[in-house]
Amino acid sequence: MVPTAAPQTFKLGLVQMRCAADPAVNLERAVAKVREAAARGAQIVCLPELFRSRYFCQTEDHANFDLAEPIAGPSTQALGIVARESQVVIIASLFERRAAGLYHNTAVTIDPSGQIAGMYRKMHIPDDPLYYEKFYFTPGDLGFSAVDTDVGRVGTLVCWDQWYPEGARLTALDGADVLFYPTAIGWHPAEKAEFGPAQSDAWRTIQRSHAIANGVYVAAVNRVGHEATTGPASPGASTTGSANGSPAGGIEFWGGSFVCDPFGVVLAEASRTDEEILIVTCDRRHQETVRRHWPFLRDRRIDAYGGITRRFKD
Amino acid sequence: MVPTAAPQTFKLGLVQMRCAADPAVNLERAVAKVREAAARGAQIVCLPELFRSRYFCQTEDHANFDLAEPIAGPSTQALGIVARESQVVIIASLFERRAAGLYHNTAVTIDPSGQIAGMYRKMHIPDDPLYYEKFYFTPGDLGFSAVDTDVGRVGTLVCWDQWYPEGARLTALDGADVLFYPTAIGWHPAEKAEFGPAQSDAWRTIQRSHAIANGVYVAAVNRVGHEATTGPASPGASTTGSANGSPAGGIEFWGGSFVCDPFGVVLAEASRTDEEILIVTCDRRHQETVRRHWPFLRDRRIDAYGGITRRFKD
Repeated sequence: MVPTAAPQTFKLGLVQMRCAADPAVNLERAVAKVREAAARGAQIVCLPELFRSRYFCQTEDHANFDLAEPIAGPSTQALGIVARESQVVIIASLFERRAAGLYHNTAVTIDPSGQIAGMYRKMHIPDDPLYYEKFYFTPGDLGFSAVDTDVGRVGTLVCWDQWYPEGARLTALDGADVLFYPTAIGWHPAEKAEFGPAQSDAWRTIQRSHAIANGVYVAAVNRVGHEATTGPASPGASTTGSANGSPAGGIEFWGGSFVCDPFGVVLAEASRTDEEILIVTCDRRHQETVRRHWPFLRDRRIDAYGGITRRFKD
Repeated sequence: MVPTAAPQTFKLGLVQMRCAADPAVNLERAVAKVREAAARGAQIVCLPELFRSRYFCQTEDHANFDLAEPIAGPSTQALGIVARESQVVIIASLFERRAAGLYHNTAVTIDPSGQIAGMYRKMHIPDDPLYYEKFYFTPGDLGFSAVDTDVGRVGTLVCWDQWYPEGARLTALDGADVLFYPTAIGWHPAEKAEFGPAQSDAWRTIQRSHAIANGVYVAAVNRVGHEATTGPASPGASTTGSANGSPAGGIEFWGGSFVCDPFGVVLAEASRTDEEILIVTCDRRHQETVRRHWPFLRDRRIDAYGGITRRFKD
């Protein structure tokens, strides 16, 4: 399924950034960073989850639906121009307004012609203290898929999806050479000392495991910086916190964007605190070699996996 | 599905051992190690994959079928006595002779009454230089499952299974609190310097990911020591080696047995070179806490996972 013109090697650009309160500022800064990544050789550039705003899901506030936009819409239009000018593929995570009262957390792939080449609606939606996403996003209805681009076949998933081996597997079975995970994940400051290291390590570990299980490159693109909780009180904000206390204190997004190879080896990793652009070269010949030597796809017991579609075996 | 009498905490015993040429010696040593683990408090003890012999799959030799035995058979009988005497659950990986010309790589769970409580036939069978398992083992036909024991509900998988998220998921969905992976994996000595660290790290990473994705304890039990390649020439032994040369030189089993908690945190890890018995306490309350705070089972998109039973989407 790889286009015959797909190059043996291709360069990813990961934009780890802070997000300000003003969506116009975030778009302007994102555009500048995409241009910088392209100037540094990136052929496909991924932005963090919902980069156009603060992570508004810290509260349940109907006014936040004003942040949503249609797809195609203002963001895809602006980024389409940049994609064409810089001749790059762009993966942009957007708050999609599909209809009145119907919204999704959607990642759009824009090709170097400026057109939308693919769209993915986040399938797994979290709902946890300060991550009240079930209030905002209808679970995706487009399934898991990959899309052909100038650099090869690319799969996009979003944040909470990264905890689900099924999503990675299905996207890889659709022919993806690389999986992108635009992300907005961080620590509750009150929990960080006790649980922080295990949390960010688990996040890194499970995404590396998707690379290993499927023989694909994986690129996780997170935001950085502390964002305070604002707006109306959230459901049970004073009672639904972790064992360690309430989730008050906002979220410290933990950065740590990274790319790993098809055997899970981390090739580049961004800091926990700063904005950063990672440029990483991927090699399809290396992927071929890894899959030949660790031929996991050969031996899958597809005759025995039917139970995966059950909730629990009870 | 946990028996009401299941304790809040329970102790695992992992026996990392070398295997000699003589099956009688291996059984004798395994029995002694199970007794030692029980004396140190283990309530469920797991032995490495095919501990009764050298790893005979380094060559394709029909004479090696003489190593197989029925289940129930001599090994389960001997271990049943130990289980009763020491009042422990034992997980034993055996070369099963099911009928003439029909063999499996089977893990048996023996309860403290000495009876066989469960049986698992390895589902994913490798066939790679020096791991010619497809010659010996018919892929399992019992599916993935967990079994009730005195310490709770336990799932058993075997070695190559550890690379497949589907196997771990299905066993967890059957109610397992802990997954055991009896294993025989090692380095080709000629490859070790260049590829060794990435290989053993990938092995550890993907098993930790099963713990994370499913909120279960995971225990991997490997053998240690170098075993030379003996017997008739193997298929293409001089040509099917890695990019780095032929697989001649036997296998250096890399030990590194470990237990991780339901969030992938490694609780104990054995050496790469020595025999060792790990005793590790698991806490069902901790598992409950991890699953409450990282509720991945809540959000699975079972409506969208049907494609898992396809070989490839093409």
